[in-house]
Amino acid sequence: MAESAKLRRSRITPEREAKLYAAVLALLREVGYDALTMDAVASRTRFSKATLYRHWGSKAELVVKALRHQKPVNIGEIDTGSLRGDLHEMVRREGDCRMEQGTSLLRGLAMAVHENADLLRALRELLFEPEMTGFDRMLRRAVERGEIREDNPAVEYVPHMLVGGLVVRGVIDNQPSTQTFLTSYIDAVVLPALSA
Amino acid sequence: MAESAKLRRSRITPEREAKLYAAVLALLREVGYDALTMDAVASRTRFSKATLYRHWGSKAELVVKALRHQKPVNIGEIDTGSLRGDLHEMVRREGDCRMEQGTSLLRGLAMAVHENADLLRALRELLFEPEMTGFDRMLRRAVERGEIREDNPAVEYVPHMLVGGLVVRGVIDNQPSTQTFLTSYIDAVVLPALSA
Repeated sequence: MAESAKLRRSRITPEREAKLYAAVLALLREVGYDALTMDAVASRTRFSKATLYRHWGSKAELVVKALRHQKPVNIGEIDTGSLRGDLHEMVRREGDCRMEQGTSLLRGLAMAVHENADLLRALRELLFEPEMTGFDRMLRRAVERGEIREDNPAVEYVPHMLVGGLVVRGVIDNQPSTQTFLTSYIDAVVLPALSA
Repeated sequence: MAESAKLRRSRITPEREAKLYAAVLALLREVGYDALTMDAVASRTRFSKATLYRHWGSKAELVVKALRHQKPVNIGEIDTGSLRGDLHEMVRREGDCRMEQGTSLLRGLAMAVHENADLLRALRELLFEPEMTGFDRMLRRAVERGEIREDNPAVEYVPHMLVGGLVVRGVIDNQPSTQTFLTSYIDAVVLPALSA
């Protein structure tokens, strides 16, 4: 990937990069997006502010790349042979602990996104759109296998359904979004809506 | 209702109460939950801090009662004769403008809820649970009419589906949650999942 090559040329090793991202996410959890400054990141890491801006462009990009770095599931790589299998595998790979961390980080970003158009743009370009491409591929295969109908309007609402499960469970019910919960939710809501 | 009677006895007219709630919601939009203080509310309204605490108990209760006051749709009152009709009527009563305001207020509360257990408790007791009772009644009638099966596991996930539509549309897609959108979403997702 061109980006990693650029970082390597500048002697930013993958280890230093990983430590930087961990520091950014820790700060994000502690103080939230608005109070997170490039100064604070620089003082917690061995990166100068100049280096941060040169390589990551902006606070929004740095934060989103840190989020993307911890994201272990590449939906596009999952291919179990059935839509149900693919969705369950996605939840299994996510894991209880990562799902919790992700929910709490996204909760912290929900407000910031509204006030920082560049953060929303970075989230969309670097995190959501690649994810959507993976979903599209998963759903396309399900259409080809005859599991779901191409013109089913629910096909474009898979993220809405999944996010709703996570948000209501995590925020309103204030319970952990476990794999068990999300798997039942997929069977109860996502698959029936897609198979209608 | 006992609560209104209590306010009336203390000469807090419905008009003063409505003005107070409007001021609280305006403050909430401007500064967010954490920065909203009883001092700020008192200085914007003709209520003393002592009166606010005496009648509303806490900041959390005051904010949730303000939210509840602007909520015009009592789901429990809707009864059109079909589940689809009931859900569409709910969206129609909500209205585009109120839906937008509600989304932006809830976005601002998502973070605060996590850090303020008393706010979550007040939201649940005063806002979500009465709403859920209305939903339960709506779904019970649909079961009795034979529109949906009682043991369909999607029945308990109606709020999850609806909130997901609003959050992804409003936050990730950054588009207004219109009646048109939510009506299509109900037809594409909620009804098929419930009818499976």
